[in-house]
Amino acid sequence: MRYSLLAGGKRVRPVLALATARALGADPERFLPAACAIELIHTYSLIHDDLPAMDDDDLRRGKPTAHVQFGEDVAILAGDGLFAEAIRLFCEQPGEPPRVLAALRELSTATGLGGMVGGQYVDVAGGAADPEALRELHSLKTGRLIAASLGVVLILEAAGEPETMAFRRFADELGILFQIVDDILDVTGSDEQLGKPRGSDERHGKLTYVSLFGLERARELAAESHARATAALSDAGGETGDLRGIADYIFTRNE
Amino acid sequence: MRYSLLAGGKRVRPVLALATARALGADPERFLPAACAIELIHTYSLIHDDLPAMDDDDLRRGKPTAHVQFGEDVAILAGDGLFAEAIRLFCEQPGEPPRVLAALRELSTATGLGGMVGGQYVDVAGGAADPEALRELHSLKTGRLIAASLGVVLILEAAGEPETMAFRRFADELGILFQIVDDILDVTGSDEQLGKPRGSDERHGKLTYVSLFGLERARELAAESHARATAALSDAGGETGDLRGIADYIFTRNE
Repeated sequence: MRYSLLAGGKRVRPVLALATARALGADPERFLPAACAIELIHTYSLIHDDLPAMDDDDLRRGKPTAHVQFGEDVAILAGDGLFAEAIRLFCEQPGEPPRVLAALRELSTATGLGGMVGGQYVDVAGGAADPEALRELHSLKTGRLIAASLGVVLILEAAGEPETMAFRRFADELGILFQIVDDILDVTGSDEQLGKPRGSDERHGKLTYVSLFGLERARELAAESHARATAALSDAGGETGDLRGIADYIFTRNE
Repeated sequence: MRYSLLAGGKRVRPVLALATARALGADPERFLPAACAIELIHTYSLIHDDLPAMDDDDLRRGKPTAHVQFGEDVAILAGDGLFAEAIRLFCEQPGEPPRVLAALRELSTATGLGGMVGGQYVDVAGGAADPEALRELHSLKTGRLIAASLGVVLILEAAGEPETMAFRRFADELGILFQIVDDILDVTGSDEQLGKPRGSDERHGKLTYVSLFGLERARELAAESHARATAALSDAGGETGDLRGIADYIFTRNE
């Protein structure tokens, strides 16, 4: 658990949660349990995703994956353990208990069949056959947990409806942007930058934004998505500088 | 998820939760979300336990295990999905929100490193080398979730300290009883009764109550454990007839 959690990574999801707190004028530090819980869940999903029966990846963040380092049995349990610890941690999140429960409900929905696990299932069951299905697959597999990173803070802070809607539009768009850039980097990045072998999507025969639309059009789609995300932020109002910075980073990142 | 969840099973844990509600004079039906969440977690743990990288079992409850039926990737995800749905369900448990959170905290602790997953890790990392270590392994691997089946209801109902202590003594003893009987049945049961091949412990080279103490002494230990469990129930007071019935069933079961 410690090995995979502390192997690095961009910490996009917890930072999104903290930046959302700041945007709402709240003290980000108060949201550390929820933010960390989300990172634990993300890490658990990577460990299980990398397993031989799933994507069978040997490298993650430039280090041997958990099952290569510790064996498959320990890797499965490390993922299970991280998930359980995430829930335990979330139960300690300060806030009005009904809101903590509602936020945890959103997080578990984003993790389960209606989110990450559901998307992974679609992926292993054959993947997406057309652009519309690809968008839905990504929305489930990565989008919902990214959206929940903002969503849990919006719920905990009982943000008003107009801001909530604008922030949620931003979150949904950010999930799409993240995926388009991921697909581009899998083709253009170096092994060191990615911390894993390039071209993994193609080897797994996956439909991606690049395989569907070509590299040039995928880059245009990323720019359009980035523009929609920042427009949503303007509608949300508040101290959104950090969130804007994250969107810019996701758009321009090379790792 | 549906296949493994509806394959049968004794439903010991949810029935324990409902019987605890009755013992406290509460309406059992109100605790169905929590009780079902516990069964979902138990089922997820069986699916992951049966995987080739873990116990590599082909049969469970008389049917092919999830990975035999659907493939390893789908089985891993089915376990993950059941866990997430369990949490979502628990968030909908009626009750005072601070108590629901405290109960969910106990359940996630019983599931994670400080319970089931921790015990499974000790098991795959070499198992128990002596009776004391065996008791601790079982306490983690099966005892904590059985204890939490009562524990979450005690927390939700804000049971007083004397009853809580007596019920918790009962729960701890029940976990031990359950395991001793399990070890005995693995030697004496038929494949049909067990729903899986007999002698699985011996084939996996596991230390058990039978391998440690012999069959006759294991049976005596079970009787002593049953007596301690029913004594704890008498101390607890309330409508404990159903809980007593479960202890008797666990003691005398042959499947």
